[in-house]
Amino acid sequence: MSRLSRARAELPHPEVGEIDLLEVLHALSDPTRMKIAATLRETAEQLCGTFAVDVAPSTLSHHFRGLREAGVIRQREDGNRRWTSLRREDLQARFPGLLDQIVDHYEHADPGAFR
Amino acid sequence: MSRLSRARAELPHPEVGEIDLLEVLHALSDPTRMKIAATLRETAEQLCGTFAVDVAPSTLSHHFRGLREAGVIRQREDGNRRWTSLRREDLQARFPGLLDQIVDHYEHADPGAFR
Repeated sequence: MSRLSRARAELPHPEVGEIDLLEVLHALSDPTRMKIAATLRETAEQLCGTFAVDVAPSTLSHHFRGLREAGVIRQREDGNRRWTSLRREDLQARFPGLLDQIVDHYEHADPGAFR
Repeated sequence: MSRLSRARAELPHPEVGEIDLLEVLHALSDPTRMKIAATLRETAEQLCGTFAVDVAPSTLSHHFRGLREAGVIRQREDGNRRWTSLRREDLQARFPGLLDQIVDHYEHADPGAFR
Protein backbone atom coordinates (compact mmCIF):
# COMPACT_ATOMS: atom_id res chain seq x y z
CA MET A 1 0.00 0.00 0.00
CA SER A 2 1.43 3.38 -0.94
CA ARG A 3 1.95 6.09 1.58
CA LEU A 4 -0.62 8.15 -0.31
CA SER A 5 -3.37 5.58 0.02
CA ARG A 6 -2.56 5.01 3.69
CA ALA A 7 -2.81 8.73 4.31
CA ARG A 8 -6.07 9.14 2.40
CA ALA A 9 -8.67 10.90 4.50
CA GLU A 10 -11.53 8.83 5.83
CA LEU A 11 -14.92 9.34 4.27
CA PRO A 12 -17.01 11.89 6.18
CA HIS A 13 -19.76 10.58 8.44
CA PRO A 14 -22.07 12.53 10.77
CA GLU A 15 -21.68 11.95 14.49
CA VAL A 16 -24.54 10.06 16.15
CA GLY A 17 -25.96 13.23 17.66
CA GLU A 18 -25.90 14.96 14.30
CA ILE A 19 -28.04 12.35 12.55
CA ASP A 20 -31.16 14.18 11.35
CA LEU A 21 -34.54 12.45 11.23
CA LEU A 22 -35.69 14.15 8.04
CA GLU A 23 -32.44 13.23 6.29
CA VAL A 24 -32.84 9.60 7.36
CA LEU A 25 -36.42 9.55 6.05
CA HIS A 26 -35.30 11.10 2.78
CA ALA A 27 -32.43 8.62 2.46
CA LEU A 28 -34.83 5.70 2.91
CA SER A 29 -37.49 7.11 0.55
CA ASP A 30 -35.73 5.86 -2.56
CA PRO A 31 -36.16 2.19 -3.63
CA THR A 32 -32.46 1.58 -4.30
CA ARG A 33 -31.36 3.16 -1.02
CA MET A 34 -34.06 1.30 0.91
CA LYS A 35 -32.94 -1.97 -0.65
CA ILE A 36 -29.31 -1.28 0.35
CA ALA A 37 -30.40 -0.62 3.94
CA ALA A 38 -32.59 -3.74 4.01
CA THR A 39 -29.75 -5.84 2.57
CA LEU A 40 -27.32 -4.53 5.20
CA ARG A 41 -29.65 -5.57 8.03
CA GLU A 42 -28.81 -9.15 7.08
CA THR A 43 -25.03 -8.81 7.05
CA ALA A 44 -22.29 -7.21 9.13
CA GLU A 45 -20.45 -5.57 6.27
CA GLN A 46 -20.64 -5.85 2.52
CA LEU A 47 -18.37 -4.87 -0.35
CA CYS A 48 -19.65 -2.09 -2.56
CA GLY A 49 -20.35 -3.56 -5.96
CA THR A 50 -21.90 -6.73 -4.55
CA PHE A 51 -25.38 -5.37 -3.92
CA ALA A 52 -28.23 -6.82 -5.98
CA VAL A 53 -29.49 -3.51 -7.30
CA ASP A 54 -30.08 -2.69 -10.93
CA VAL A 55 -28.56 0.77 -11.31
CA ALA A 56 -25.44 2.19 -12.99
CA PRO A 57 -22.27 2.33 -10.83
CA SER A 58 -22.29 6.13 -10.78
CA THR A 59 -25.91 6.14 -9.62
CA LEU A 60 -25.08 3.57 -6.97
CA SER A 61 -22.18 5.71 -5.70
CA HIS A 62 -24.58 8.62 -5.44
CA HIS A 63 -27.01 6.51 -3.39
CA PHE A 64 -24.25 5.26 -1.06
CA ARG A 65 -23.17 8.82 -0.49
CA GLY A 66 -26.75 9.85 0.33
CA LEU A 67 -27.06 7.05 2.86
CA ARG A 68 -23.65 7.82 4.35
CA GLU A 69 -24.24 11.55 4.69
CA ALA A 70 -27.63 10.88 6.31
CA GLY A 71 -25.92 8.62 8.87
CA VAL A 72 -27.63 5.42 7.74
CA ILE A 73 -24.50 3.57 6.60
CA ARG A 74 -20.81 3.60 7.41
CA GLN A 75 -18.20 3.12 4.69
CA ARG A 76 -14.52 2.34 5.07
CA GLU A 77 -11.82 1.92 2.50
CA ASP A 78 -9.52 -1.08 2.49
CA GLY A 79 -6.97 -0.62 -0.27
CA ASN A 80 -9.01 -0.37 -3.45
CA ARG A 81 -12.10 -1.86 -1.87
CA ARG A 82 -14.86 -0.05 -0.05
CA TRP A 83 -16.89 -1.78 2.64
CA THR A 84 -20.34 -0.71 3.69
CA SER A 85 -22.25 -1.44 6.90
CA LEU A 86 -25.47 -0.27 8.49
CA ARG A 87 -25.10 2.15 11.45
CA ARG A 88 -27.63 0.08 13.31
CA GLU A 89 -26.48 0.83 16.87
CA ASP A 90 -26.07 4.53 16.12
CA LEU A 91 -29.54 4.79 14.60
CA GLN A 92 -31.00 2.79 17.47
CA ALA A 93 -29.37 5.16 19.95
CA ARG A 94 -30.58 8.25 18.10
CA PHE A 95 -34.09 7.10 17.05
CA PRO A 96 -34.96 3.91 18.98
CA GLY A 97 -36.96 1.42 16.96
CA LEU A 98 -37.29 3.62 13.88
CA LEU A 99 -35.03 1.86 11.39
CA ASP A 100 -36.35 -1.62 12.09
CA GLN A 101 -39.95 -0.48 11.93
CA ILE A 102 -39.48 1.24 8.58
CA VAL A 103 -37.53 -1.62 7.01
CA ASP A 104 -39.94 -4.19 8.45
CA HIS A 105 -42.85 -2.35 6.84
CA TYR A 106 -40.96 -2.20 3.56
CA GLU A 107 -40.24 -5.91 3.55
CA HIS A 108 -43.79 -6.73 4.61
CA ALA A 109 -45.35 -4.47 1.98
CA ASP A 110 -43.04 -5.58 -0.79
CA PRO A 111 -42.04 -9.21 -0.20
CA GLY A 112 -40.81 -9.50 -3.78
CA ALA A 113 -38.15 -6.86 -3.36
CA PHE A 114 -35.41 -9.45 -2.87
CA ARG A 115 -36.37 -11.82 -5.69
CA MET B 1 -73.00 28.14 -5.00
CA SER B 2 -72.88 27.75 -8.76
CA ARG B 3 -73.64 24.49 -10.47
CA LEU B 4 -70.03 24.45 -11.64
CA SER B 5 -68.57 24.61 -8.15
CA ARG B 6 -71.01 21.97 -6.88
CA ALA B 7 -70.02 19.70 -9.73
CA ARG B 8 -66.30 20.25 -9.19
CA ALA B 9 -64.48 16.95 -8.95
CA GLU B 10 -63.14 15.93 -5.58
CA LEU B 11 -59.41 16.16 -5.07
CA PRO B 12 -57.68 12.86 -5.89
CA HIS B 13 -56.52 10.67 -3.00
CA PRO B 14 -54.91 7.22 -3.10
CA GLU B 15 -56.92 4.32 -1.68
CA VAL B 16 -55.59 2.89 1.58
CA GLY B 17 -54.10 -0.13 -0.18
CA GLU B 18 -52.32 2.10 -2.66
CA ILE B 19 -50.44 4.13 -0.04
CA ASP B 20 -46.75 3.55 -0.71
CA LEU B 21 -44.23 3.45 2.13
CA LEU B 22 -41.47 5.21 0.20
CA GLU B 23 -43.85 8.01 -0.82
CA VAL B 24 -44.92 8.46 2.81
CA LEU B 25 -41.27 8.65 3.91
CA HIS B 26 -40.52 11.15 1.18
CA ALA B 27 -43.57 13.25 2.09
CA LEU B 28 -42.44 13.39 5.73
CA SER B 29 -38.79 14.13 4.89
CA ASP B 30 -39.41 17.85 4.39
CA PRO B 31 -39.61 20.16 7.43
CA THR B 32 -42.75 22.01 6.28
CA ARG B 33 -44.58 18.81 5.40
CA MET B 34 -43.50 17.18 8.66
CA LYS B 35 -44.75 20.17 10.61
CA ILE B 36 -48.13 20.01 8.85
CA ALA B 37 -48.44 16.32 9.73
CA ALA B 38 -47.40 16.96 13.33
CA THR B 39 -49.89 19.85 13.61
CA LEU B 40 -52.72 17.69 12.26
CA ARG B 41 -52.09 15.01 14.91
CA GLU B 42 -53.42 17.54 17.42
CA THR B 43 -56.62 18.46 15.59
CA ALA B 44 -59.43 16.73 13.68
CA GLU B 45 -59.45 19.03 10.68
CA GLN B 46 -57.84 22.36 9.93
CA LEU B 47 -58.41 25.07 7.34
CA CYS B 48 -55.62 25.49 4.81
CA GLY B 49 -54.05 28.87 5.39
CA THR B 50 -54.13 28.54 9.17
CA PHE B 51 -50.96 26.47 9.58
CA ALA B 52 -48.04 28.08 11.38
CA VAL B 53 -45.51 27.52 8.63
CA ASP B 54 -43.32 30.17 7.11
CA VAL B 55 -43.54 29.50 3.37
CA ALA B 56 -45.21 31.21 0.41
CA PRO B 57 -48.82 30.16 -0.37
CA SER B 58 -47.78 28.53 -3.65
CA THR B 59 -45.09 26.52 -1.85
CA LEU B 60 -47.59 25.51 0.80
CA SER B 61 -50.05 24.31 -1.87
CA HIS B 62 -47.26 22.22 -3.34
CA HIS B 63 -46.53 20.66 0.06
CA PHE B 64 -50.23 19.92 0.70
CA ARG B 65 -50.41 18.24 -2.66
CA GLY B 66 -47.34 16.12 -1.89
CA LEU B 67 -48.85 15.00 1.41
CA ARG B 68 -52.23 14.31 -0.22
CA GLU B 69 -50.83 12.31 -3.12
CA ALA B 70 -48.71 10.26 -0.71
CA GLY B 71 -51.83 9.43 1.31
CA VAL B 72 -50.75 11.28 4.45
CA ILE B 73 -53.54 13.88 4.47
CA ARG B 74 -57.09 14.17 3.17
CA GLN B 75 -58.40 17.45 1.77
CA ARG B 76 -61.98 18.44 1.08
CA GLU B 77 -63.45 21.57 -0.38
CA ASP B 78 -66.25 23.45 1.31
CA GLY B 79 -67.24 26.35 -0.91
CA ASN B 80 -64.12 28.46 -1.21
CA ARG B 81 -62.47 26.86 1.78
CA ARG B 82 -60.28 23.79 1.84
CA TRP B 83 -60.07 21.61 4.93
CA THR B 84 -57.17 19.31 5.69
CA SER B 85 -57.01 16.31 8.00
CA LEU B 86 -54.49 13.57 8.74
CA ARG B 87 -55.36 10.10 7.35
CA ARG B 88 -54.45 8.63 10.69
CA GLU B 89 -56.68 5.54 10.60
CA ASP B 90 -55.75 4.78 6.99
CA LEU B 91 -52.03 5.05 7.74
CA GLN B 92 -52.45 2.98 10.89
CA ALA B 93 -54.24 0.29 8.87
CA ARG B 94 -51.58 0.31 6.15
CA PHE B 95 -48.41 0.74 8.27
CA PRO B 96 -49.29 0.14 11.93
CA GLY B 97 -47.39 2.39 14.33
CA LEU B 98 -45.28 4.06 11.67
CA LEU B 99 -46.72 7.57 11.58
CA ASP B 100 -46.80 8.03 15.34
CA GLN B 101 -43.28 6.71 15.75
CA ILE B 102 -41.88 9.04 13.10
CA VAL B 103 -43.73 12.14 14.35
CA ASP B 104 -42.90 11.28 17.97
CA HIS B 105 -39.20 11.12 17.08
CA TYR B 106 -39.50 14.43 15.24
CA GLU B 107 -41.13 16.17 18.19
CA HIS B 108 -38.68 14.61 20.62
CA ALA B 109 -35.64 15.54 18.52
CA ASP B 110 -36.85 19.05 17.77
CA PRO B 111 -38.93 20.32 20.70
CA GLY B 112 -38.64 23.87 19.39
CA ALA B 113 -40.42 23.09 16.14
CA PHE B 114 -43.72 24.53 17.37
CA ARG B 115 -42.40 27.69 18.97
